[in-house]
Amino acid sequence: MAYEFKASRRIQFADTDMAGIVHFANFFRFMEETEHEFYRSLGFAGHFSGPRGTLGWPRLSARCDYRKPLRFEDVVEIHLLVRAKEEKSLLLDFIFRKQSRDGLQVVAAGALKVVCVRVCEETGRMSSIPIPPEISARIEAAPSRMLESP
Amino acid sequence: MAYEFKASRRIQFADTDMAGIVHFANFFRFMEETEHEFYRSLGFAGHFSGPRGTLGWPRLSARCDYRKPLRFEDVVEIHLLVRAKEEKSLLLDFIFRKQSRDGLQVVAAGALKVVCVRVCEETGRMSSIPIPPEISARIEAAPSRMLESP
Amino acid sequence: MAYEFKASRRIQFADTDMAGIVHFANFFRFMEETEHEFYRSLGFAGHFSGPRGTLGWPRLSARCDYRKPLRFEDVVEIHLLVRAKEEKSLLLDFIFRKQSRDGLQVVAAGALKVVCVRVCEETGRMSSIPIPPEISARIEAAPSRMLESP
Amino acid sequence: MAYEFKASRRIQFADTDMAGIVHFANFFRFMEETEHEFYRSLGFAGHFSGPRGTLGWPRLSARCDYRKPLRFEDVVEIHLLVRAKEEKSLLLDFIFRKQSRDGLQVVAAGALKVVCVRVCEETGRMSSIPIPPEISARIEAAPSRMLESP
Repeated sequence: MAYEFKASRRIQFADTDMAGIVHFANFFRFMEETEHEFYRSLGFAGHFSGPRGTLGWPRLSARCDYRKPLRFEDVVEIHLLVRAKEEKSLLLDFIFRKQSRDGLQVVAAGALKVVCVRVCEETGRMSSIPIPPEISARIEAAPSRMLESP
Repeated sequence: MAYEFKASRRIQFADTDMAGIVHFANFFRFMEETEHEFYRSLGFAGHFSGPRGTLGWPRLSARCDYRKPLRFEDVVEIHLLVRAKEEKSLLLDFIFRKQSRDGLQVVAAGALKVVCVRVCEETGRMSSIPIPPEISARIEAAPSRMLESP
Repeated sequence: MAYEFKASRRIQFADTDMAGIVHFANFFRFMEETEHEFYRSLGFAGHFSGPRGTLGWPRLSARCDYRKPLRFEDVVEIHLLVRAKEEKSLLLDFIFRKQSRDGLQVVAAGALKVVCVRVCEETGRMSSIPIPPEISARIEAAPSRMLESP
Repeated sequence: MAYEFKASRRIQFADTDMAGIVHFANFFRFMEETEHEFYRSLGFAGHFSGPRGTLGWPRLSARCDYRKPLRFEDVVEIHLLVRAKEEKSLLLDFIFRKQSRDGLQVVAAGALKVVCVRVCEETGRMSSIPIPPEISARIEAAPSRMLESP
């Protein structure tokens, strides 16, 4: 049973904008990349086709608070914490910390609410489904003391 | 005094992901593009250098709720509403509506909190400042009846 | 029979990088957006499902020469010219011109070679096919005098 | 003296498009990321401010040939080879190989021509300059037998 995951990422030139800092929309890509790395660490993919059809995790909501800028070549640690596991959805928190000389400093904090769906092969339409038991069995909510107040 | 703006955008191929729908992070780019179009409609830019140095609007927070998917070649209307104007910041709401046969349908709703800053030419560091009066004079909060409950 | 198309695009904040100019990879997105707008002007889409299955136009090659930078809020004209039409592929040239006070100035020139494919619904694999006659009938190569030397 | 570098990258969900494969423009981001990793391995950055002002490497041209698609979660090896070093510019080749069961398979081949510039702090304008000797001294052209015919 896993409730957290830590990834590390170096900021790339194309992540920046003319203000010289990471464009704010990219933090959402970084969250999703960490989420998928979390899934892979548990043995499954964020979008895959299997005997029950194609399963995916579209987003119901996303948010991010920005505290400090990230710049080209910064190394950022992204800490995923499972805030809640419901029948069909997961609420995932993400803390972005920058490796600076004074240790790790929080630069941003975000969250994704994702729902498990089956994709109809013929129409492409998505229907929410209970999280498959083999996946659900490997994920649990983090202890509340580890979570920031929402 | 303006408190709203409507932009229209056609979904491009590169906006989509392998699920066949617009990647969720792109809604944040669409919000910012609409915000900047709003600023241009009022006669200023979202990032510009003038006699007082370079002014910008970094984001303090961003969020989006996703209700319906958007697909390649869909035309989406993005409705910006000023939820609040404070001394140094703006809170902007965005309603995404899709032009369908049954009329406009809400597909997503988001918000950005942006803060006015001056960028130091030498160090690149940003300091928040009161919104310049010539800008502040042109923006006001929308009537509360027009805003969704937050 | 069409052999050219002109689109116009305003440079967005997220198109820029920390050098203060449009990131070079974005010119390829702009080419594709113009290509798809060209197809729409002829009555079809750049990726669509019909009675013959899903048709698409993956890229065989792409190139771009950069002459002048583009900056935030610049308006760029993108001029598509059909360099060649073969049985299964199109070679498309793109000239980027910037609206400046001295008139239009070439800022970049690129090309895409795209091939018509049918996508297998079951496996997702793509096989090249002759350009469908109803599409091929609407596209022709531009007169050579209009094309830059390659 | 270095003339090659190998990087590895896992394909992310946001790298894909509705065709289920990596969007072609992203190969150019991958090339640049590998280029910058190459520079870091030699002890300098792809864009930095020092005693001689800000130095950067804007692109003069970019191209890519696409042979096989890349998909979500594929691991791709990106092999940078210095094709040529001139006074002010570098010509860099990139071979993309995919780790498959049959060993490494070439999926794409690209190139960037980059020029060394100094950025004027006041105007933001860029002027090409000879590659600084401390950088030039660490880079050489690869043996021609290692390079594909152009």
